[in-house]
Amino acid sequence: GPVSTLVRELRCMCLNFTPGIHPKMISNLQVIAAGPQCPKVEVIAHLKKSEKEVCLNPEAPLIKKAIQRILDSGKKKN
Amino acid sequence: GPVSTLVRELRCMCLNFTPGIHPKMISNLQVIAAGPQCPKVEVIAHLKKSEKEVCLNPEAPLIKKAIQRILDSGKKKN
Repeated sequence: GPVSTLVRELRCMCLNFTPGIHPKMISNLQVIAAGPQCPKVEVIAHLKKSEKEVCLNPEAPLIKKAIQRILDSGKKKN
Repeated sequence: GPVSTLVRELRCMCLNFTPGIHPKMISNLQVIAAGPQCPKVEVIAHLKKSEKEVCLNPEAPLIKKAIQRILDSGKKKN
């Protein structure tokens, strides 16, 4: 399993969505199911250059593209 | 943006992969690109019942299924 555990808040993380994010900009993407901590699905992206975290619209096609991009980058390097 | 920031370790998180995980079991999935913190793509899943976090093989088809499942669950509820 993972060497250490991510700290997760027990509440909704996203108040609004950040527009204009391109898959290339994303280094880390987290998809969080609705649950006791929040009644909505939430998607949080960590951006490469700014080191910022932003919330994305879970229905944005960008999400699947960004995940595919990250997974494919591993295939090329290994 | 997100209300609070996830704490991330500045090193590889995964020493091995956990087999036998079904998309249904996953409440939270994080896809992390290779970067200064780790030369490999890493995928960490948070499991619903056990509250455990496990590492998944980034090439496992399970990953895309689990993400689709979580994103679709939001569409049904909204």
